[in-house]
Amino acid sequence: MNIEELKKAPIGVFDSGVGGLTVAREIMRQLPNEDIIYFGDTARLPYGSKSKESIIRFSKQIIRFLRTKHVKAIVIACNTATAQALDAVQQEFDTPIIGVIAPGARAAVAETKNKKIGVTGTEGTIRSNMYTRIIREMLPDAEVLGKACPLFVPLVEEGFKDHHITEEVIDIYLREMKESDIDTMILGCTHYPLLRSAIIRYFGDKVHIVNPAYEAAMDLKKILEENGIANENNEFNKYEFYVSDAAEKFKQFANFVLPYDVKSIEQINIEEY
Amino acid sequence: MNIEELKKAPIGVFDSGVGGLTVAREIMRQLPNEDIIYFGDTARLPYGSKSKESIIRFSKQIIRFLRTKHVKAIVIACNTATAQALDAVQQEFDTPIIGVIAPGARAAVAETKNKKIGVTGTEGTIRSNMYTRIIREMLPDAEVLGKACPLFVPLVEEGFKDHHITEEVIDIYLREMKESDIDTMILGCTHYPLLRSAIIRYFGDKVHIVNPAYEAAMDLKKILEENGIANENNEFNKYEFYVSDAAEKFKQFANFVLPYDVKSIEQINIEEY
Repeated sequence: MNIEELKKAPIGVFDSGVGGLTVAREIMRQLPNEDIIYFGDTARLPYGSKSKESIIRFSKQIIRFLRTKHVKAIVIACNTATAQALDAVQQEFDTPIIGVIAPGARAAVAETKNKKIGVTGTEGTIRSNMYTRIIREMLPDAEVLGKACPLFVPLVEEGFKDHHITEEVIDIYLREMKESDIDTMILGCTHYPLLRSAIIRYFGDKVHIVNPAYEAAMDLKKILEENGIANENNEFNKYEFYVSDAAEKFKQFANFVLPYDVKSIEQINIEEY
Repeated sequence: MNIEELKKAPIGVFDSGVGGLTVAREIMRQLPNEDIIYFGDTARLPYGSKSKESIIRFSKQIIRFLRTKHVKAIVIACNTATAQALDAVQQEFDTPIIGVIAPGARAAVAETKNKKIGVTGTEGTIRSNMYTRIIREMLPDAEVLGKACPLFVPLVEEGFKDHHITEEVIDIYLREMKESDIDTMILGCTHYPLLRSAIIRYFGDKVHIVNPAYEAAMDLKKILEENGIANENNEFNKYEFYVSDAAEKFKQFANFVLPYDVKSIEQINIEEY
């Protein structure tokens, strides 16, 4: 593609399911001229407890699919896929690919005063240690406290967002973090911002909460502008959504997260890519 | 295969993950002369919240894989896959295929005195209404109360089996069932027997709890004997395990559920079948 074609080309965004819509929403807000192709791997979610090898295979299939749509850049809107697969897919594909972890880590480093940072996420994200590694590259003497919180996603999906059971689970997972004196905490899974108010209630105002979705959209904007491939003029935006399972269910959640109604969602067989 | 070859052929057993091992264990107990080929679809679990269409596609791939191992019969050791895919796969394949739902329903019908039966399971199992349909075929005026319990599996997997949070979630899901006067309740998901003692504590001794895993093994035994293809003599049993993701993690759980140590587990790419 030449530079004019690149400017008009869409952004690819993918996630294991619906969580990445919080990232898509930020891109829509901060880059209102860009077209978006979103893929949610709803047939194989969740990614959080699965092996690095599987997540790399899934991510490569999805990127091959997104490339058939001639995307100019890809955002991995999933912390687990970023943690397990970003390095591997960046080596294989020449499309620019950004994840959510580096932007989130950078924001936390900018925010912390006492260099004590908490990171929550799935089992895969925490086990990968990627947040810790990137934070320490920027702030070598940072103290990073990671904690996997596997019950957060099912509780959110069951509608227990503000239930006292969820408050108790937050206490079980995050008490150690609260008792240490972290001043910054990263919501390292795209579902967790939906628990943001309960988590803020728990920590009080002495802990700054970082949402990597917001930071990743800022990063994407910078990369597009630096490379001169941002879409400057696009009156009739297109947002297209693809899933690997049950478009109808995805639609309900999408219409809840996004500021407008999703018109069409197409189901594809991702295993063929 | 001729009748002698059929007698020696293994039984195929599959599940979305580890839950079906409770069924495999019952088959090992009740049919100690049979070889078993077990497949756990750990790369795509859980099945409970996914669409009928996807579950049928997954089940067909797995059955094609099991048939490469020349199984003489297949047990779908997963309530969701039985509910969503049993009819479809029975139409496509000539291998005898049995599920866990009919055996569970039959046991509940045999047990109930007041014809009021509770059924717990995943979203997919409850939505399918298959337990209700089969129970009513046998007992037309039965009253069946179904309830999806999506948090049970993550709670069990997080080790919260006897935690007071789990007791509270049991109360949230099952209070209506408790307040109705069911006298029989089916554990319609292979993970739920792991909550059996907490559920019995909750209902007290006036409700009889049915575990379809046990009943399915009895059914299998009957089918093999009626067709004269039971293995009557097998001094050196073979149990083989296959998964689609992370053999090591599966092994830990398998060694916890099964009465002996699993020697080898092989990871395969199920999407190729």
